[in-house]
Amino acid sequence: MHADEGLAGRIGSPADVKALDASQLAPLCADIRRTLVDYGKRHGGHIGSNLAVVELTVALHRVFDSPRDAIIFDVSHQSYTHKMLTGRAPAFLDPALAGSVTGFTNPGESPHDLFALGHTGTSVSLACGMARARDMGAIPAGGPGSGDVIAVIGDGALSSSVALEGMSDAAELGGNLIVIVNDNEMSIAENHGGLYASLARLRESGGREGPNPFRALGMDYRYLEHGNDVDELVPVLEEVRDVDHPLVLHIHTTKGLGLDEEDAAAGVLPGRHESNHWQNPLSAADAPLKARKVYGRMAMEALGRRFPDEPGLVVISPATPGSNGITPEFRVRAGRHYVDTGIAEDHAAAFAAGLARAGATPVLATSSTFFQRAYDEIHEELALNGLPVTLLVFAAGFSSTDHTHSGIFDIPMLASIPGLTYLAPTSGGDLLDMLDWSTRSRDHGPVAIRIPGDDVLAADRDRARRSGTVAVADALSATGAEASSEAPGPLIPNPVPGVHGHDAAQSNPFLRYRIDRRGRDVALIGLGTMLPLAESCADALGHATDDRLQATVVDPRQCSLLDEAALARLGANHRLIVTLEDGQRDGGWGQRIAAYYAAGLKDTESGSAESRKTGSGRPSSPRVICLGADAEYADRVPMDELRARYGLTIESIIPRILRILSEGIPQGTR
Amino acid sequence: MHADEGLAGRIGSPADVKALDASQLAPLCADIRRTLVDYGKRHGGHIGSNLAVVELTVALHRVFDSPRDAIIFDVSHQSYTHKMLTGRAPAFLDPALAGSVTGFTNPGESPHDLFALGHTGTSVSLACGMARARDMGAIPAGGPGSGDVIAVIGDGALSSSVALEGMSDAAELGGNLIVIVNDNEMSIAENHGGLYASLARLRESGGREGPNPFRALGMDYRYLEHGNDVDELVPVLEEVRDVDHPLVLHIHTTKGLGLDEEDAAAGVLPGRHESNHWQNPLSAADAPLKARKVYGRMAMEALGRRFPDEPGLVVISPATPGSNGITPEFRVRAGRHYVDTGIAEDHAAAFAAGLARAGATPVLATSSTFFQRAYDEIHEELALNGLPVTLLVFAAGFSSTDHTHSGIFDIPMLASIPGLTYLAPTSGGDLLDMLDWSTRSRDHGPVAIRIPGDDVLAADRDRARRSGTVAVADALSATGAEASSEAPGPLIPNPVPGVHGHDAAQSNPFLRYRIDRRGRDVALIGLGTMLPLAESCADALGHATDDRLQATVVDPRQCSLLDEAALARLGANHRLIVTLEDGQRDGGWGQRIAAYYAAGLKDTESGSAESRKTGSGRPSSPRVICLGADAEYADRVPMDELRARYGLTIESIIPRILRILSEGIPQGTR
Repeated sequence: MHADEGLAGRIGSPADVKALDASQLAPLCADIRRTLVDYGKRHGGHIGSNLAVVELTVALHRVFDSPRDAIIFDVSHQSYTHKMLTGRAPAFLDPALAGSVTGFTNPGESPHDLFALGHTGTSVSLACGMARARDMGAIPAGGPGSGDVIAVIGDGALSSSVALEGMSDAAELGGNLIVIVNDNEMSIAENHGGLYASLARLRESGGREGPNPFRALGMDYRYLEHGNDVDELVPVLEEVRDVDHPLVLHIHTTKGLGLDEEDAAAGVLPGRHESNHWQNPLSAADAPLKARKVYGRMAMEALGRRFPDEPGLVVISPATPGSNGITPEFRVRAGRHYVDTGIAEDHAAAFAAGLARAGATPVLATSSTFFQRAYDEIHEELALNGLPVTLLVFAAGFSSTDHTHSGIFDIPMLASIPGLTYLAPTSGGDLLDMLDWSTRSRDHGPVAIRIPGDDVLAADRDRARRSGTVAVADALSATGAEASSEAPGPLIPNPVPGVHGHDAAQSNPFLRYRIDRRGRDVALIGLGTMLPLAESCADALGHATDDRLQATVVDPRQCSLLDEAALARLGANHRLIVTLEDGQRDGGWGQRIAAYYAAGLKDTESGSAESRKTGSGRPSSPRVICLGADAEYADRVPMDELRARYGLTIESIIPRILRILSEGIPQGTR
Repeated sequence: MHADEGLAGRIGSPADVKALDASQLAPLCADIRRTLVDYGKRHGGHIGSNLAVVELTVALHRVFDSPRDAIIFDVSHQSYTHKMLTGRAPAFLDPALAGSVTGFTNPGESPHDLFALGHTGTSVSLACGMARARDMGAIPAGGPGSGDVIAVIGDGALSSSVALEGMSDAAELGGNLIVIVNDNEMSIAENHGGLYASLARLRESGGREGPNPFRALGMDYRYLEHGNDVDELVPVLEEVRDVDHPLVLHIHTTKGLGLDEEDAAAGVLPGRHESNHWQNPLSAADAPLKARKVYGRMAMEALGRRFPDEPGLVVISPATPGSNGITPEFRVRAGRHYVDTGIAEDHAAAFAAGLARAGATPVLATSSTFFQRAYDEIHEELALNGLPVTLLVFAAGFSSTDHTHSGIFDIPMLASIPGLTYLAPTSGGDLLDMLDWSTRSRDHGPVAIRIPGDDVLAADRDRARRSGTVAVADALSATGAEASSEAPGPLIPNPVPGVHGHDAAQSNPFLRYRIDRRGRDVALIGLGTMLPLAESCADALGHATDDRLQATVVDPRQCSLLDEAALARLGANHRLIVTLEDGQRDGGWGQRIAAYYAAGLKDTESGSAESRKTGSGRPSSPRVICLGADAEYADRVPMDELRARYGLTIESIIPRILRILSEGIPQGTR
């Protein structure tokens, strides 16, 4: 039987689940599971966690009445079955429609999706709010949210203790609120923290023994061992329905249940395996690694070589190692030099502060979007205390990801923190130099390093191929298959002695702008991943003007402090400055450069008196165009489209430059 | 016996505590307690929490060997006794030396102070880091931090569950780590959350009964009932010293123990009373309230009047109501319309999102510095979801506070969040209009309102007195004594019908800049609390030039979006724009205005072609000076000094304007 001829395809809404004979629930679950496994092979996704909650989700829609009863999925990456049961099954059955739904709940898609969520741990707090609104009489009887309020949260999310705050507050607020803890014994990687020993003891004792963290927070508690048995789930949910107080229903499930041999052959295994957290389409198995993983692995290799000699060198990952090139093999080799704190970025940042204060050398690695969760600790514990902690910021900048994981906010967030230095390397070599400096010297506060994006990787690969450095070129072209192999060997040659090391530690050697190409009239300042585009624009400008316009290209290397001397020199012989920023324009870095020029050249700068008035009607300061992302949460917009939207393409930039410079460009150019 | 002739004055270092005969410990504690009570009357401070831990701190320095043993005080507002025992007793004994120490631990003061801390809950994480560094061999034997690692954390801080994350991780990391939970049954106000029922049951049962939250996180556990008995504390600390695994020592103490009748007469009571969290000097009892409390009370009054008619209107305060004018009386009257979440800003923000999603109207009130702790939820749960939540941002902008509570980061933080509108009222009336709009209309995402500062309050008081509106003038001059009286009555007259209300809700009426004064040549754009200074500068400029220079004064009313039409008009007939910003310049609001002008007037703006080239050598765009705070954590710098440092005084601004405009100012002016 074809999947779309199965039961799953016949469910158009939760009412259809309720109308089924009870005996059909298990077959429906089996059909959904098959559908999701097939979908994973074709399209990839968070298949493992979804396979864990097929039965739970069917049982929820059998017993409860969404959206009158509010079901809130924590992080919401496990909501595929929920989507299938609420009118969106075709997206999972028909390959042509796969793009019609997002990978997370989305109020724009369905009234059954209450929030757009992608960060962990807040479902209980959101549920508290909805329950409170209901209990205050703010929701019309029978309307959405007027019934039970249910949060579905994974065991891994409990380490993100906003969930614990939520439960403690729920216990005080009182009233109906059901928290379903979906315990599949896994976070993204394995779970970390003493809390999980308590969960294990609860599982082993059928919920009866050991200190109960949920009861300790004031919640009532029930346990169900067979969380993948829909026929056991339904009566338990019926029992807790309309409960008059906050309750945790702890169920035991299996992540990736139903993954098959074909998946296994691709390295994706059912059960407690990190491999099933995020699955790539089978067709992508041999695709070269993206910059994020390549540079992450490079950085880890470089640090790993130093572990034997540096007892205090520690890599910290708040639960997301794999995405950032921190491979299972690396973690094993690192031993005590690697700490996974669980999904607890705030704790991870303060933990790093403690390490640094004691003289150790912490390197904290996570995504731009997840550093948002440690914003206060980066301010208070790290920057205010001036502690030499290195932050590796992955997935910063534009991407075609969903709106809950946008990477464009890191510059407004981090570059405005006093005493924090935000470095933007423009090659793998740069990255290693910067990492070496930040982890070897201690005479600085926190240093964040923005892991370069795919444009930089492409340029690195080009350079490596042109220079015939085969080992480097190979390393830069590593594929996912290699990444999961045992003992992959060093990704890059050992660093050249004398280039790296303590000599660089005396002061920050990366604060001065680097002039990559000297021209005149227009200067393109390309931060980090934008540098290759700046170079291409300079080339295109030369072409378009028969080399009459030769743009200057600047690699600023960091976005925390202005190199005012360099800017003053640029201002003296360029009429137009263009900043290219792989992040949000407002509150970002380019606007600081604009503000520098808008204030007029400093009276104290030599030559400024002359440069302020040159030529006929020439303005005293250059005009400045700041290019970067609009202030928005772009949702799965292809990169090309995004760059076009923000004017960050050669096709957009060249005419703009020519138009602005038109008055002064030599005759006949246009 | 005079305090400075007592035992406390004879302790120069922890070695002196160790050298005392055991029988002298209790008298030492009594002398310290007397000293702190006297100090509180003279200088104010966090006296209550310090009085709770006098004996604990003496016992810690008796038993442990700081700084070899690392003692980390959570928030560190309770470290006065620690300071007295580590060479800083004179600061508490001699009124002339009171300014020589800060109110928090401070590595700049003493090697016994490990971190500068002022935000809650991170001590356990910091301790984890130090313990890990020790256990990895990164600390030389015998050196600071090479011994035991101890975190001292209050019960109130446990609601900030980064502390729980820390304990769970500690349990996994293993090794010596002692967390002392100082349980005085109080947060800043009363405790909130189911966790506290568990603490109560532990206290009642001598630590034996009920679900134990610490054991549930994997920590070992001990309980001591008499936490203010130094002779009981010493042997217990000796027993846990050098413990080889993470352990919680839960002790029961009394906040404000030793406060006397004079304090009581000033409204500051020992025990479980919010009044003893922060004590003002007795001499300040009748001082008029600061803007923060006046406007906080205004806002609460306005909301409170609507509670009977609006079931879903909810004020949320994460544990700090009193500082923001949310009086105990208001809270009682508000009933279910008021929620204290405990110190859990991240939960509070997500809770507000849940309320808003369900159709309720949440107003979340806390300090600029504490909103940092909810940064991710403001992005993800509020802004991305476009939910109409109102954030009242208190204590934003410059202040003479300590560096851990700086209010200057809110604009870089909040104004760069897509879809969030950050409003900056310039009067009490403005504040109420904006609050009314944000809480009555739902066709907007999150709205933050920056509570105005003392300059605005002074202007409001002037206006009220000049216009003879006695009731308003009185309300604006309320004192602390009134604030703690019963049923203070409405602070302001009922709003004028027709000005407030649903009519204003159709779209945001505050996005257009308001021209307060029309001039030419120079425009001063003063955001929020900076508007009175902009007005004063305009006056002074007129005086200095015999009215030949008439500055334009603009009240931008918000700092999220540029009013480009207004800016274009200003650009057309002003040569200099000065932005005045009560916050950090870098990443802030003024730089966006500078970037707007640096890009050149828009081709599409009418008149821009003309205005771009006017007069002789006149630049195409105005010059822009952005005034605001340097990127720094200013520590207890007096306001006058701070404003002088940032060039935000009339004495600095006027000469600067005159210098820049000198070329174009009519002959003879200077």
